[in-house]
Order: sequence, then C-alpha cells, then structure tokens
Amino acid sequence: MQPSSRVPALKNIATRLRIGSVRSTTEAGSGHPTSCCSAAELMAALFFAEMRYDPHHPDNPDNDRFVLSKGHAAPVLYAAWAEAGIITRDDELTLRRFDSNLEGHPTPRLPWVDVATGSLGQGICAAIGIALNARRIGSEYRTYVLLGDCETAEGSVWEASHVAAQTALDSLCAITDVNALGQSRPTQWAHDVDAYATRWRAASWHVVVIDGHDMPQVLSALEEARATKGRPTMIVAGTIKGKGISFVEGKNGWHGRAFKKGEEFDRAIAELEGQLVPENEPASPPPPRVVSRTPAKRSPLAPPTYARGDSVATREAFGAAIARLGAADERIIALDADVGNSTFSEKFEHEHPKRFYECFIAEQVMIGAAMGLAARGAIPFPSTFAAFLSRAADFIRMAAISNVNIKVAGSHAGVSIGEDGPSQMALEDLAMMRAQPNMTVLYPCDAMSADRLVEAMASHQGPAYMRTSRPKTPVIYGADETFPIGGLKVLRQGAADVATVVGAGVTVFEALKAHDELSKRGVNIRVIDLYSLQPIDHVTLARCARETRRRVITVEDHYAAGGIGDAVASAVAADGITVQRLAVREIPRSGTPEQLLDHYGISSRHIVAAVLGDGA
Amino acid sequence: MQPSSRVPALKNIATRLRIGSVRSTTEAGSGHPTSCCSAAELMAALFFAEMRYDPHHPDNPDNDRFVLSKGHAAPVLYAAWAEAGIITRDDELTLRRFDSNLEGHPTPRLPWVDVATGSLGQGICAAIGIALNARRIGSEYRTYVLLGDCETAEGSVWEASHVAAQTALDSLCAITDVNALGQSRPTQWAHDVDAYATRWRAASWHVVVIDGHDMPQVLSALEEARATKGRPTMIVAGTIKGKGISFVEGKNGWHGRAFKKGEEFDRAIAELEGQLVPENEPASPPPPRVVSRTPAKRSPLAPPTYARGDSVATREAFGAAIARLGAADERIIALDADVGNSTFSEKFEHEHPKRFYECFIAEQVMIGAAMGLAARGAIPFPSTFAAFLSRAADFIRMAAISNVNIKVAGSHAGVSIGEDGPSQMALEDLAMMRAQPNMTVLYPCDAMSADRLVEAMASHQGPAYMRTSRPKTPVIYGADETFPIGGLKVLRQGAADVATVVGAGVTVFEALKAHDELSKRGVNIRVIDLYSLQPIDHVTLARCARETRRRVITVEDHYAAGGIGDAVASAVAADGITVQRLAVREIPRSGTPEQLLDHYGISSRHIVAAVLGDGA
Repeated sequence: MQPSSRVPALKNIATRLRIGSVRSTTEAGSGHPTSCCSAAELMAALFFAEMRYDPHHPDNPDNDRFVLSKGHAAPVLYAAWAEAGIITRDDELTLRRFDSNLEGHPTPRLPWVDVATGSLGQGICAAIGIALNARRIGSEYRTYVLLGDCETAEGSVWEASHVAAQTALDSLCAITDVNALGQSRPTQWAHDVDAYATRWRAASWHVVVIDGHDMPQVLSALEEARATKGRPTMIVAGTIKGKGISFVEGKNGWHGRAFKKGEEFDRAIAELEGQLVPENEPASPPPPRVVSRTPAKRSPLAPPTYARGDSVATREAFGAAIARLGAADERIIALDADVGNSTFSEKFEHEHPKRFYECFIAEQVMIGAAMGLAARGAIPFPSTFAAFLSRAADFIRMAAISNVNIKVAGSHAGVSIGEDGPSQMALEDLAMMRAQPNMTVLYPCDAMSADRLVEAMASHQGPAYMRTSRPKTPVIYGADETFPIGGLKVLRQGAADVATVVGAGVTVFEALKAHDELSKRGVNIRVIDLYSLQPIDHVTLARCARETRRRVITVEDHYAAGGIGDAVASAVAADGITVQRLAVREIPRSGTPEQLLDHYGISSRHIVAAVLGDGA
Repeated sequence: MQPSSRVPALKNIATRLRIGSVRSTTEAGSGHPTSCCSAAELMAALFFAEMRYDPHHPDNPDNDRFVLSKGHAAPVLYAAWAEAGIITRDDELTLRRFDSNLEGHPTPRLPWVDVATGSLGQGICAAIGIALNARRIGSEYRTYVLLGDCETAEGSVWEASHVAAQTALDSLCAITDVNALGQSRPTQWAHDVDAYATRWRAASWHVVVIDGHDMPQVLSALEEARATKGRPTMIVAGTIKGKGISFVEGKNGWHGRAFKKGEEFDRAIAELEGQLVPENEPASPPPPRVVSRTPAKRSPLAPPTYARGDSVATREAFGAAIARLGAADERIIALDADVGNSTFSEKFEHEHPKRFYECFIAEQVMIGAAMGLAARGAIPFPSTFAAFLSRAADFIRMAAISNVNIKVAGSHAGVSIGEDGPSQMALEDLAMMRAQPNMTVLYPCDAMSADRLVEAMASHQGPAYMRTSRPKTPVIYGADETFPIGGLKVLRQGAADVATVVGAGVTVFEALKAHDELSKRGVNIRVIDLYSLQPIDHVTLARCARETRRRVITVEDHYAAGGIGDAVASAVAADGITVQRLAVREIPRSGTPEQLLDHYGISSRHIVAAVLGDGA
C-alpha cells in the first residue's frame, strides 16, 4: 500500500480518536480532551500504519510496544484501542469509572499497558527498558513512546536521553507532542521546536522535526526513524492543543477540562464530525514480525558457599547471589548507577556483561528502565546505595502502582557506613519501601540469608526491595537454613526470657551482643532476626511477646518513623502489645561505625539499658 | 594586580590544596583525594583570585557563594579554607572524625556551607536558588558551583540547566571538572569535553572549554563568565583525576581511596612538594562588593476571612495564605512545578510575581532551588501535587540534612482526589516526610487551620511540610482558634466516650459523620483533628485514650505504613496503648472520591463499624 493512499483513512481515524476522547471525557465529567486532540494524528499513524502488532494478542512477545508517557492523554489511547477493536465503543465510555479498568491514567490492569504512567517523564525511561528487552529476547519489535512537551522539563527525560544514546537504542522511537501549553501556562519553550531539536541532537539522538497534524509528514518521520541505525530517534512534532475544535485550539485554560454536556460538547463533536473526509482504503495495523525463539534457559542453581563464621558484607553477598542466579536463569538482569564496585553488582557484570546495564549516576532511569524490562518478562535487579534510591522514589511509587516484577537493592544503609556522613546513609529507605502496600521488604543480616533472600525475591512475583549493609558481618546461618518471605528467625530463646529484642541487619549483632552481656548478669532475652519486614510474621512476633512478659524492644539502623519499630508495632498491636523503639532520632554525622551506632542509641549497650531499664 | 603575576602563587596554592587533601584523607583513613586533585587549580583560582568574600565573616550577605556539588571532594574545600585562614591546618586533619565538623561530605554545620552536598546533582540546583537570592536581596554577589563530570548523568542537573537559562541567571557560574573517571569506571563521555559543551550550549548556557590545570586558562574562563550577561556560564574543564601524583594520574581504581600511610603517602607528598614554584606576589581573596540595603519589609498580617460553614479546599486556603503572608513579609517566596492553578500558588504569583519562580514540571530543581533560597534567608514555599514531591524525595532528604528553612506543600493527597487515579494520589507522602526527624509535618482539615498553619510554618525555623486536599471541606474553626505546631484539636468529647477516633484532613469529616451516626445509636466517641503529625501531642493523645477505654482508632487517607496510624501508635506506646488503624491497604484505582473513601475502608461507615466491632 502506498503511504499516500492511506492518508485519508488515517486522517479519519485521527478525527475519530478526537471524537472518542471528547465523548469519553464528557461522559466521565473530567479528563484531558485537549491534550488528546494534539496527539490524534500521531496516534492514528502509530496504531494504524506504523506499529506492527496483533490487536487480539497483547501477550505476543513480538508486538511493537507503545508507552504513553503523557499519561493524562489516556482517552486517546483508549480511543485507538476502540478503533482497533481491542475494546468496544461502549467500553470507551466507562472512562474513569470505578467499575472500569479505563482509569484516568493508564495502568497495567489493562493488558496493553506495560507500566503505569501519569507521573510525567517516566514513560520514556520505561520505554528504554522495553526496548532493551527486545535485544534480550532477540525480538525485532520496536518501542514507541509519546511524550508531552511539558514533561521535557523533568530531569528523568534527560537521563533517558543519555542511556538510550549510550546503548545505541535504534529500536526506540520517541515523539514529543509540542502543543506548547502546559497545565497552568505556556511551556518553557512554547512552540520553539528548535529548542527541542537542538537539545535532542546534542544528546546524540536522530531528530526529525515535523508538523504533527500533517499526516504524510508523520508517516515519513516514522519511516525515517525506522531506517535510522545506531541511535534512537526523537520526532519533534509541532501541534496545537485542542486541535480540531476551533474554540479551544491553542487556548490556555483548557488543560484537564472536559467539555460540558449540551452546547459546548455538541459544538465540539459537530466540528469534528465535519472534518471526516472520503477515504479509499481502510487502515489497519500490520502484523508483528514474529521471531521463533527458544525459551530462556534455566539451569540448576549452584549452592552458596559461605561457612558459619566467615565475615562477609551483605552487599557483597548480594552481588555474588545475583551473579550466581544469573548463571541459572537468563531472565536475571542487573542495572547499576556507577557504584557497582560498592554494591558488588560488578560480580554480575563480570559474569554476565550482556545482561548488565550501566546507567551511570542516574537512578531514575535505572529504576524506570528496570520497570520496562520487568514488564516484558525480565527479572531486573537495579541497585545502588539505598540513600540514592530516594532519588527514584517516584519511580518506585509508579513501579508499585504498575505492580511490576522489579527487585531493587540498596546498600550502605544506616549510620553503620561510618565516615562518609549523612548524605550517604539511608535512614528512611525502609519507610519509603514499606509505604508501598505491595512491596516486599527484606533486610538480611548475614551473607547466607542475603543469598537465600535474593533467590526468594527473584522467584517472588511483584516488586521487592532488599536492604544491605556496608560492614562485614559474621555468617550465622548454615546452607540448610530456609528464609521464606514473610518469615523471621528466633536466634536466642529460653523459658525465662524477659523481653523480645527485634533487630535486622547490623543490629542483629548488637542484639546478640546484648544477649551475651545480659546473660552474664543472669538476665535472658529473646533475639529475633526480622529479615522480612513486609510481609511480616505477626504471629511469631506476638507469640514471642506474650512469652517474654509482653515486652518488645526493636532496634534499627534507621530513623524512628516508618521502619522496623513501626512495622513490629503494627504487627503486634492487635494483641494489645506495644513496642519500645531504639532508632536513630536525629540527623547523624561522620564518625566510625562503632561510634555512630553507640552515639545514636542503637548499640548493644543501649539494648542492655533498655532491657534493664524497665524492671527486668 | 595583573593576572599573569598571580599565576605562580595560585599554582602553589593548587599544589598546597592537593597536599592538604592527601594529608587529611590519609589521616582519616578514607576519602577521595584523587577527586580533589583534579579540581585543585579550579579551587585555587576560585578562592584566591575570582571569588570576592570576607574569609572572617561568612555571614556577610554580599560574599560570593560557592557550592561544592561534587561533595565527595570536601577535603579540597577544607584545604581552601585552611589556605584562607578560615580553619587551621590542625583543624584540617580532623577530617571525618566524630568530634569534627569537617565531615566526609560538607554540611551546614560549617558556616561557609549553605547546603549539604554528597548526593550528586543537587548542588547546582541549590546554587540556582542562591543566585536567585542575590536578585531578591539586591546583592551583586556571584554564585559558583563545582560539579563532577559523573554527576552530569543526573537528570536534576538538566532541570537546573533549564531553570537557570529561563531565568537568565548570569550571576551563576558553574564548572564541570571533567576528570573522566567515575566511581566504578570511566564516565559516559570520558574526556570528550565537546559532549559536555554541546549539551550546555544546547541548553542556552554560555560555555567555555578549558584545560582545568592551566591556571591562565582557568582565570580567563572565570573572567569571561563574569563578563557574560543574560545567561549562566558553564566552564567545561578537562582535568586528570589524581593530577600531580604520577602513579595515580588518570588511573581507574583510585576513586574514594586514601593513600596508605608510609611509602604510598610519602611518595605522593614528595611528588607534590616538588611541584612548588617560586612566586612573587601572594594571592588572596578580593573583598565582597558590599551593597547597602534596607532590611526586608515586614507589615502586619491581614487576618483570614473564612466564616464557619464556608466550603473551601485546604489547597485553596494554602494559596490564599501564602499570598497574604507574602504581602506582610518580603522573605516569602513561592516556587511552582506548573500546577499553580491546582495548588493555588497562582494566588501568590498574581500578587507577588517577582517572588514567584516557575520551575515547570521539574520538582527536583524546585526543591533544590528552594534549599538555596532558604539557606540565604528567604522563606520559600515550593508546592506541587504531594504525589510528585516523591520526585524530589532525595532533595527533601538533603534539605533535612541541611536543616534549611524550606516550607514544602503538597496538594491532592490521597484517594479523595477521585477519578485521576493512583498516579496522582499521594498515599506515602506522610511516610516520606515523617521519616526525616527534623521535619515538621502538618495536615489541616479546613481553610482556617490551613491558613493558620501556613503562618505557623513560616515562622517556625527549619524544614516543614503541609499536606493539603483536593475536595472542598467545610470551615469548622473560627478566626480566634490557634494552631500551635505540635498541637491537635479535640472536636467532640464527653465523659461516656468509648473510643478516640483520630483523623486529619478529609478523614476528620468522616470521623465527625461517624460521631453523629454513632450518637444516634447512643454510642459516644471522641474525635481528634491531628493537624500536627510531627511533632505530635502525645500527652493529649494518651490522656484521651485513657479516658475512652484505652481505645484509639486512626483513620487516614494514606497507606497504612508511616502515616497517622504509625505516628499515633508511636506517641501512645509508652502508655501501653495500642491503635487500630483504618488506612488504604492496596493500590487504589479511579472512581469518585466517595466511592474510593468507602471502598478503601476509610469512610464514616468503616469508622462506625470499627467502633462497634470491638464491644463498644
């Protein structure tokens, strides 16, 4: 089929996408129809001329992928699906209803959506992961991502620009819908398409500047992108917000406003319907380029080789574990933010260089790309210092909303890192991770448990986090020990225990020291290694509390709010049990790990005092 | 003085900065001497030729400012201070010790440091705020920021590039120390200085490319920056990591490694000492350009005009309050991320356009610039949707470490926003904010309390957060009501109360509805508006609990971990009281606010059931 002959049909599709977007948002009483109208030709060309996919099989691994980075334009995406027969026109009108999966912004409750969008500047990061995944599985699928111009302000977009250029990701085609209007005012560069083009060229992307409402230009830009090798393409599309509806076209003040039922709506629809043209040939998506492939290799997992008494940092055990796991399962991927020699993800890089992605110091795109990889079947382990995961907190939030299968690891947690000072100490990462209700949160104290928990998180379905520590700690578990997610280990117990002390990570060893110190004085305590904070074994915690005079003391290398104390308190509250918390309660400073653990009240000495202080 | 005649002295200073950095890190046994060595000429030129400041008066408002964005090079900064007589050579050797303020990365415990650095890519954002502050106070001081090349990977750097260009910030001079080596490997662009120059030019900065070890080139680049009007300058300085010490120069594997005492250290020092040259004229910092100014205007504050029963969203009251406060106090500043028409910061923009900074959708630089402004005496109110504050979580973390006086506001909290769906709902913001031990956390339920709490947070010293809601809520407080930070309001109470129900924001009204419903059934409950989550009034909470059969039920439009339930549980734990929590426990979806409050278990119906469910 000649491109030119498809143009009338594609123009009509664009018009129908506008009509659909206006209808569904008016029916919902809210939404962003004008943000949909600017993208209608782009969407029509993508979904009915450029992208190769099977509308009836979203799970086909060779389907081209599309990410709506400007998630608030969801109605135009749903309209494209209606046009493709993926959903019905009636479905389309359920937009934003509680009983519908057509949410205000797209989420993976819908099988065609890989990752939730709606927090701007994230879709392009996920698209990088999706595009990298094509290489991983040997598919020829291409990845398309539509950005709003306003989201170009987000730094994450530029992190993405670097990684995509660095990885020569020519299967990625991004489009910026330069409609020049943000939510509250004109965007910073308004209709200056050169401002966009210059920046993307500087970022080593291939750039095509077009009129985003000129269908032949759109088609030819997409073709040019497809023909471009060795670098990703950015199509900078000048558009008009509200295009097609004369009384809102290019007008400020119409962002996020549905047309009112009655005259306003009727006039908009009438104008749009008047734009339908005669067409010769219908347009429909070409089929995917199906590739035959063998399933990802799975080999038996080599056992860990730690012996009790070895001294190994959990961060090092993490690195060794992902490397070992990577040998057994090709789906395992690691991503780094230039700290692989500290988190020990370098062990993975050494053994599996093709499945290791260096994102340099760009935590947002690291997590975003991991989301995209996870959404397409990989099991990605992005890791950095836990403190710097806060840089990607919004991405972690969206990963939870997407319920993607990412396995985040953060090292150098807490004051136990010592001299580097507070900027490098994660003291709020547990709060951040526990807040997400579907996030598994693990915190091993020794190399053996770290190893086994990496295995557990890899086979668990859903987002998971592992916190690791900088200092070397003794191996206390044998290879026969199991660490189910949601469990804990009772390390010391006796009938005469006067309190249950709950630690995790480095504080397990402080608790064990306190146990020994106290037993010299004839006082017995129970010691728990709470390696799984979420889910949490509330049954065993409550039982231990009841068996130890209902006294529970938590001790954590973390701030007081949102960490182990809160997790345990919440777990035992139903049994009427309260918790005494030892935690870091002020902004710490540089010092040796020992000085800091002691000064901030979480060393064995403070545990001893807490146990004795209350009439033990 | 001719520039050329200063060169030998400046070269010697650079050598002494290297010697100082090597000495102090070896003494500490850790640190980043090679990252200091690459920047030695840059630092020498800045501190002893370019920057105008009074070494003995860090509080002089007209001193030029310096931000070490590559915070791990702290020893070279401390060495510059030692050279300038700000600290002694003995002080310098206390680096990283627990009893010293010369921490591993700079913090404002030191009077010359405006904001803590060490999380890369943040210093340049703070520098923008510092530079904007010069305009605010009518000073001619210039702001200098030194970046590492590796941190260019961080998106926040590019957010900063946009805002600085947009605001034509010609008093800002940034320098990138392109030493080509990151922590674990060569940086993405290694020594390709053009890769940097092209990107900064594309970002509309004036760019100068130099050899960062050639002192005349350094001096002339700084002069060129000073002469450049209408745009900020980026000096791209090609350097060698470890410069001056032959056996580490340009070698990978030396990041973050101190020289070992003994042969390694002695050889490094001997090499450096051999580089000292004869000099004619000493170099010393020129004095600041002192400007006489009148103190910032303070006028009486107009009272709020809400009447009981008015229906006003707290987000709207927030906007009105900062606008009103801005009229009374010129130090008040507002920053927006293109949602001013939703957060109502547009009210401030309308009345005080010169003190309103539009950052577009770039939350990181918004918070970063606010940090810089706060560090120099402004009282900045950055605001956006609370969900998108998670984008700046690492900046909020560093703001807490810096203990700067920023007043963050987040709107559209919780499922009560309705149809837009989970990506727009903040359900973890309280966890994020409460985790920081010095963060004040406020959450008003009506317009009057929102207004008064804005006042309170403005006059409070230190970081503070206010959470506001999307829906309109009735005004329940009169103008005579006071809202001290750390307080709460008991809204309903009686001798026969069977439980204390603690809400905040929208759930206060659910609790009041539950109260009325229950009282029809002859069951009385106490209702608390917990407008201050941190600090929290644990005394009144515990007293209420004791007076209401020790039953406390919290209800919050927030996930279960880290929010109101945890705050209250922690506050009353010492009294042996546990808490029953109603909170959002799964990823929500689109729907009406009423549907969502009810479906996720935080509506009045669920409060009634909780009260009755346990034998009331």
